[in-house]
Amino acid sequence: MEIVLEPVATTHNVRTEVTDDSWGEVVTNITLADHIPTEAFDSIELFSHLEIIFYFDKVGDDAVIFSGRPRGNPDYPVMGILAQRKKDRPNKIGLCTVELVSHEGRTITVKGLDAIDGTPVLDIKPVFKEFQTAKEVTQPEWVSDLMKYYWR
Amino acid sequence: MEIVLEPVATTHNVRTEVTDDSWGEVVTNITLADHIPTEAFDSIELFSHLEIIFYFDKVGDDAVIFSGRPRGNPDYPVMGILAQRKKDRPNKIGLCTVELVSHEGRTITVKGLDAIDGTPVLDIKPVFKEFQTAKEVTQPEWVSDLMKYYWR
Repeated sequence: MEIVLEPVATTHNVRTEVTDDSWGEVVTNITLADHIPTEAFDSIELFSHLEIIFYFDKVGDDAVIFSGRPRGNPDYPVMGILAQRKKDRPNKIGLCTVELVSHEGRTITVKGLDAIDGTPVLDIKPVFKEFQTAKEVTQPEWVSDLMKYYWR
Repeated sequence: MEIVLEPVATTHNVRTEVTDDSWGEVVTNITLADHIPTEAFDSIELFSHLEIIFYFDKVGDDAVIFSGRPRGNPDYPVMGILAQRKKDRPNKIGLCTVELVSHEGRTITVKGLDAIDGTPVLDIKPVFKEFQTAKEVTQPEWVSDLMKYYWR
């Protein structure tokens, strides 16, 4: 079964290199694709946070793996690709919750998106409080180490 | 630009009808697609929660809208499609945070997934505490009304 998607928007920011850390202060403009009418963003500014689903278009098909150590770090255990958030994954989909800074016509400005300049966006959803069901999250130890400088 | 995806897994549960509410107690098995090796799930049981990105395959192309009232309810304001979570959206992508109940080989069992039986899954990501950046969420008033029976 093949599913064909078309990006609904594209990112614009100062991050042109694929690097791991320091995404917290990055400000990104997201502009609608030509085939999406402006009304798709109507009243989006009533939400404080959005979920951005995007496509890691710089990942080659031969880079996709099914398991491995997060960031290739020998200190971390081997994990299945669906048990980590590495970009080199089947379908190359990225997901990040961001703060909505402003909305102006066909462009929204967000803070804390971990996607580089020119990344195709597949979907944008408002964060509903009621969807934040993950209250007491448990995770393996390596995650906090890996994330140490991710937002800083 | 066209992006071609192939489902990594499929859902199995008792919900065969597309209905709006009462997803909280639904238990779903998610089984890997044939082309994804079993190792993709390795050690996934170390996480308590997962993000499931799926495809609303029952939504026809002609059902997709760009704005409208959530659930068609006249009491709710008109919102852009990217300012609501309605399924009839460009690219037909769904997203839900679920509780991971168990993992056995090529199948995981999760609780609280709002997808019906047989839904194609595009990606599965572990919830990292550090990715839960949406602390003080604000949202329009209609959201809490719409979500009243969503999980119950």
